[in-house]
Amino acid sequence: MTTESWVDSAADGGFGIGNLPYGVFSRPRELPRVGVAIGDRVLDLAGLSADGLIDGRRRFASGSLNAFMAAGRPAWRAARDRLVELLTDVRFRERVEPHLVPVRDVELLRPFEVADYVDFYSSEHHATNVGRIFRPDREALGPNWRRLPVAYHGRAGTVFPSGTPIVRPSGQRRAAGEDEPGFGPSLRLDFEAEVGFVAGVPSGAGRGVPTWAFRDHVFGFVLVNDWSARDLQAWESQPLGPFLSKSFATSISPWVVPVAALETARVRPPAQDPEPLHYLRCDEPWGLDLRLEVLINGRVAARPPFASMYWTSPQQLAHATVNGAPLRTGDLFASGTVSGPERGQRGCLLELSWNGREPLELDGGMRRTFLEDGDTVTVRASAPGAGGATISLGEVSGTVLPPL
Amino acid sequence: MTTESWVDSAADGGFGIGNLPYGVFSRPRELPRVGVAIGDRVLDLAGLSADGLIDGRRRFASGSLNAFMAAGRPAWRAARDRLVELLTDVRFRERVEPHLVPVRDVELLRPFEVADYVDFYSSEHHATNVGRIFRPDREALGPNWRRLPVAYHGRAGTVFPSGTPIVRPSGQRRAAGEDEPGFGPSLRLDFEAEVGFVAGVPSGAGRGVPTWAFRDHVFGFVLVNDWSARDLQAWESQPLGPFLSKSFATSISPWVVPVAALETARVRPPAQDPEPLHYLRCDEPWGLDLRLEVLINGRVAARPPFASMYWTSPQQLAHATVNGAPLRTGDLFASGTVSGPERGQRGCLLELSWNGREPLELDGGMRRTFLEDGDTVTVRASAPGAGGATISLGEVSGTVLPPL
Repeated sequence: MTTESWVDSAADGGFGIGNLPYGVFSRPRELPRVGVAIGDRVLDLAGLSADGLIDGRRRFASGSLNAFMAAGRPAWRAARDRLVELLTDVRFRERVEPHLVPVRDVELLRPFEVADYVDFYSSEHHATNVGRIFRPDREALGPNWRRLPVAYHGRAGTVFPSGTPIVRPSGQRRAAGEDEPGFGPSLRLDFEAEVGFVAGVPSGAGRGVPTWAFRDHVFGFVLVNDWSARDLQAWESQPLGPFLSKSFATSISPWVVPVAALETARVRPPAQDPEPLHYLRCDEPWGLDLRLEVLINGRVAARPPFASMYWTSPQQLAHATVNGAPLRTGDLFASGTVSGPERGQRGCLLELSWNGREPLELDGGMRRTFLEDGDTVTVRASAPGAGGATISLGEVSGTVLPPL
Repeated sequence: MTTESWVDSAADGGFGIGNLPYGVFSRPRELPRVGVAIGDRVLDLAGLSADGLIDGRRRFASGSLNAFMAAGRPAWRAARDRLVELLTDVRFRERVEPHLVPVRDVELLRPFEVADYVDFYSSEHHATNVGRIFRPDREALGPNWRRLPVAYHGRAGTVFPSGTPIVRPSGQRRAAGEDEPGFGPSLRLDFEAEVGFVAGVPSGAGRGVPTWAFRDHVFGFVLVNDWSARDLQAWESQPLGPFLSKSFATSISPWVVPVAALETARVRPPAQDPEPLHYLRCDEPWGLDLRLEVLINGRVAARPPFASMYWTSPQQLAHATVNGAPLRTGDLFASGTVSGPERGQRGCLLELSWNGREPLELDGGMRRTFLEDGDTVTVRASAPGAGGATISLGEVSGTVLPPL
């Protein structure tokens, strides 16, 4: 689909007619509402539906995407088809144009209410590096790692919209060579560049979501920064996994890119050896050629390739529900840190600086082992669209503040 | 406070005037509403408030306790004082009695919407036993265990009300001596007898809840059964902790016992050595003399004493928020399995049968290593009230069904 939009700015920048991601925005003295990004504009779907130009007024006048996400695939498809029609057929221009708002004039909010938040660990390169750093005396990857997509539950209540300041967390951490832990602000604050998907349609208790049913349940993708305090993590994580080292903040991008917009980005994922158990098999290729870029204070720190992820999104969802756990609208599943095989492709400072031993050199003479107060971390990504176009996932950003 | 209620059945059974726990109930052709247990009756607070006998009509006509829990301690205290007045002063009997419903005529629902669910690991006896069973080659307790209350996030979307059937979960598990995992229904399904507390009043991001502020945020206590698939758990839990082995189901009791009702149950907790870091110190004794009883098919399987828990509830809350993670109304914090020092005081079959090696013998010739299809597990508890009365926490129950 390479039809062109009559919105001038839609021709480049990654928010063209093949993308149409959903978000929630507000303007002064207005309730939050659902919008769609097109070029450098936001199309106000609440206003559009109030004018009778698209169905779903109640869903779009809402302060979150949850009602629309719960409506299911036929409703998602109908809305997308209608939006393409409205934004490409010049006969609609006069009636639609009043509902286009410059994105610089709005505040982008958290796009959906998070039900449960699950974080995977699905990059082989990331898991191998972390294993080498934290558990040098053992095999880098445990015996389960290639058999199942390892994951844990994170804190849904601390999933924040892009732009939320990140207060440096305090907690217990034990210095190298010490027996006793101390308490204070984390000295090893890190980011994790990830990609997440969000469930729209619930699934019943006791029944899983097979890999082939992924599209029937999943609404779209966002970028995720799973902020991490490495010193807290090293001390607290045995035997039940990370807790306070992660639960202070997770940031997500404002635009949810529909699954349908990423069909052109699908690629064959890395070969899996051993062959996964039956419930993890997936006939369709579900690798995604999302090219991430991490910036610290505007300087490129890494370019992690999402196509290198060992476990795919449908495999993750099938695994997370194979025990019968039901899916709820708003369930967020993040990939875990995206790291490629090269040093410049690693998605967190723990790996980039090898736990602080090899400082990362950035443009302009900036060096980092871990994050400093005032640092702004931005993760952005794009993917190939149809006919040479680009699909942008936008960006997720946050600035580190000193402890309160 | 040993005032007597004019409700005859309130004199014994643990639901007297000193308890007054809150729940949500429904009757045929009626919307769910908030009620209070008194004797063998439920006092319909929606009806009572509609008649102008107590404030808070909107909160009590709700299908969950969340609005009332969010109202805060002054509102909780005012409601409790008024309920005592209404239920002890015979002058109110005529107007209140129409709002008393036999508990056998109602369905008790999940009392609140769970925001995030955190599960601790705060019994020294339980953690020691589990360490010996799962990690026999290492120290039973890791170096962090006595320094901080170890915990992880569980799945909020699978916290179910008492009575919800528990479908035996399937997943990957690896048999002893095998290299490769298999897939199928869990062969080591277990219960975990726990006590949980639920947050009412939120706390701001970046600020923790000190131990002394526990009562300002926490609404009350429930019983928890954190169903666990031990074979899935052993295979999946490294390095990020339990996931599918826990996320299929957690059951909670229908009555939320207010913090104020448990003042008479407070006892000095076990001595802590080493002395905890400053933010975990607590001047007031916050051990709770809750006497749990676990029944399998009506036969007593264990009597875990909650007073033996190493970490107290205010310490758990202070720890969980010390990194600045905000608290939301409905956040549920469970204690972890409650196990005492004696074999008959262990709160799960993993310990009671020592991972299946020493079958548990129950009355009537029943033997169990792990749970069988059709087994009903009930956890109940009571605590000392004022003047020799008993405070009942009611019970949480669930029956294991075969895989779908």
